[in-house]
Amino acid sequence: MSALRIGLLGHGTVGSAFERLLGERAAAIERLTGRAPEIVGVLTRSGGDFEEILERSQLVVELIGGLDPAFEYVRRALDGGRHVVTANKQLLSRRGEELWTLARERGVHLGFEAAVAGVVPVVRVLRESLAGAHVERIHGIVNGTTNFILSEMARTGAGYEEALAQAQELGYAEADPTDDVGGADAAAKMAILARLAFGVPVGFDDVRFDGITHLTGADIAYARELGLSLKLIGTAERVGDGISVRVHPAFLPSAHPLASVGGSFNAVTVESAAITEITMSGPGAGGSQTASAVLGDVVAAAMGAPPMPAAYGHLPIVEDEVSPFYVHMEVDDEPGVLARIAGIFGEVGASIKSVVQRGTGERAQLIMVTHPLARSRLSAALEEIGELAFVRSPPRAISVIDEEFE
Amino acid sequence: MSALRIGLLGHGTVGSAFERLLGERAAAIERLTGRAPEIVGVLTRSGGDFEEILERSQLVVELIGGLDPAFEYVRRALDGGRHVVTANKQLLSRRGEELWTLARERGVHLGFEAAVAGVVPVVRVLRESLAGAHVERIHGIVNGTTNFILSEMARTGAGYEEALAQAQELGYAEADPTDDVGGADAAAKMAILARLAFGVPVGFDDVRFDGITHLTGADIAYARELGLSLKLIGTAERVGDGISVRVHPAFLPSAHPLASVGGSFNAVTVESAAITEITMSGPGAGGSQTASAVLGDVVAAAMGAPPMPAAYGHLPIVEDEVSPFYVHMEVDDEPGVLARIAGIFGEVGASIKSVVQRGTGERAQLIMVTHPLARSRLSAALEEIGELAFVRSPPRAISVIDEEFE
Repeated sequence: MSALRIGLLGHGTVGSAFERLLGERAAAIERLTGRAPEIVGVLTRSGGDFEEILERSQLVVELIGGLDPAFEYVRRALDGGRHVVTANKQLLSRRGEELWTLARERGVHLGFEAAVAGVVPVVRVLRESLAGAHVERIHGIVNGTTNFILSEMARTGAGYEEALAQAQELGYAEADPTDDVGGADAAAKMAILARLAFGVPVGFDDVRFDGITHLTGADIAYARELGLSLKLIGTAERVGDGISVRVHPAFLPSAHPLASVGGSFNAVTVESAAITEITMSGPGAGGSQTASAVLGDVVAAAMGAPPMPAAYGHLPIVEDEVSPFYVHMEVDDEPGVLARIAGIFGEVGASIKSVVQRGTGERAQLIMVTHPLARSRLSAALEEIGELAFVRSPPRAISVIDEEFE
Repeated sequence: MSALRIGLLGHGTVGSAFERLLGERAAAIERLTGRAPEIVGVLTRSGGDFEEILERSQLVVELIGGLDPAFEYVRRALDGGRHVVTANKQLLSRRGEELWTLARERGVHLGFEAAVAGVVPVVRVLRESLAGAHVERIHGIVNGTTNFILSEMARTGAGYEEALAQAQELGYAEADPTDDVGGADAAAKMAILARLAFGVPVGFDDVRFDGITHLTGADIAYARELGLSLKLIGTAERVGDGISVRVHPAFLPSAHPLASVGGSFNAVTVESAAITEITMSGPGAGGSQTASAVLGDVVAAAMGAPPMPAAYGHLPIVEDEVSPFYVHMEVDDEPGVLARIAGIFGEVGASIKSVVQRGTGERAQLIMVTHPLARSRLSAALEEIGELAFVRSPPRAISVIDEEFE
């Protein structure tokens, strides 16, 4: 029985969970692959030598994160004919194309299920099950921190800051939560999913993203009256002859498969004419969950997994998405206000699906949901509305994902 | 550019949808696999010759269904070094082990994603992503016909017969629905999932199953008051040192990930300590959906998919499952009735979680939900209760799947 010699780069929460899980599952892996897995070296912050580990390994697991030195380590490992398994979304969303090409050229496997949505098997499903499908659209909740915060805000009525503090206390948010709450983490993951879904190069810089820091408990409370729930949604979709890849808060009708995904769970919906839609959900993070996804890729590499297909051609990035929008305005409740605002919406071609007015007098709130229109047109209307004397603060707009319209 | 020569056995709804989809996606498949797909022969009820088609093909797609002649065709194709893709759950749940072994020996791929839950990628996820995981339990809604009927009963208050007629009219149920409504179809699928999850031989005869024909609108209405929804659930789980694989109606609390799966959709939840749980859902049937799953396997075979691991050892089948139960009794409302019934439950060690009494006098209904107990103990209690003078008809019991208890 030959060995499967694994070099482990990084020994934090996921790295040590992986080492433990590999030990527990060693007999099963040997049965499946015909090879006994063995960790032949571990690179930690304080010890281990990359060159030595590389020399001894047949497969390298990269759990350091970030670009430097992870890129160079992964490049060297692939170049030296080693399979690589990584959970590094930054790396793949910025330098993935080089690495996938190198892996193809060297005939080795580069597994990265753990880089997107933890154990939710969206990477494998897009790489393999749907390799031949014409994917139209992906919607995803791919950041557990923000989903936990928004779920808490909806559940308790807390504001953003309070829910963030709660998330930090429970270990769902880091001390510096910028990458999560600002949307950059989700953007990196959506770049990877878009590359898989559409087969063309898509990188982090192609993704427009916005986070959740500006959301208020009132947005959630008002929207609930309209049957909507608020999530940070990543979208990758075909628009005309191009694609749009973006991350922003969005309202979902309660029947949408992502509306009920609570806490730190992740979920992804893939739409294609032939398949209608598939939804996958599960824990998006956590040491043992991410380690499980890494282990699945290790087994796949040892059993013989298909290569990542080369990217082909190019699809232009479409910046201006078309969507229904939720619009929140603080207005003085005077005669003619609604008519004036509706007139401006009409000028940009926006038609109104529903209007709710809350409060009266000088503290009135006007909440509208539009039929689908281009964000650029909505912005033009909101700029004009913001300048009206009876509008007390800049109007706020959040897009709505509504299957009726899609 | 070499060709990928495909022989197609069966040309019904799925077969013709597959032929159409393959035509539409030919360029994408050529890009992915480096080979241009081409259908080199079609076996229909009225025409085509198996020997000729086999001779010309590199890959055979079997969409005939049933055991005879499908088994012999698939066996011949694998034996002759052809990859095979099939949607045939009967075949794999009864003769799968022989065929998987043959495929391994000949070094060819036997793909069968379409045999279970249509495009819901549960087969690939269990075969690959979770190959190294210790799966504890699978719950699945794997029959779209029964899920449609139960969804209709819940939505409209219709009885079973009425909802079945509706399903037949809309094409969700066949003229002879026996295999679907009796649970045999779901049982075949659960046998396949159990084989994948636990890695030991599991066949159709190992699965205990019960269907939905005896359910009433009243069961659904009463259970709704308890926050429960009714589904036909397949379960494959480890119990002590054995496994239990079964299909029967079950009540789910509304927060369970399968509770909201409506219409003809399928969904599967996989539980394992390391991953917590993954849920996958999507259309379970339909020509183009099933054809999509077949196409995914064709692409996987052409790109190089890992072999099906050999089954190892054996796990005994445990017949007597432990579960909470919903119990429905028609009783005369006399003093001491509840005490007498509760006493009998107490004798078999069943403790009661909740009791609801509906109606009074001679038409009273007693609905209880128990804490978990063995089905054999419950049956003993119900037999005794059924003989009491004030019990007007045999008590009915339906198991409850409750995450609290698991």
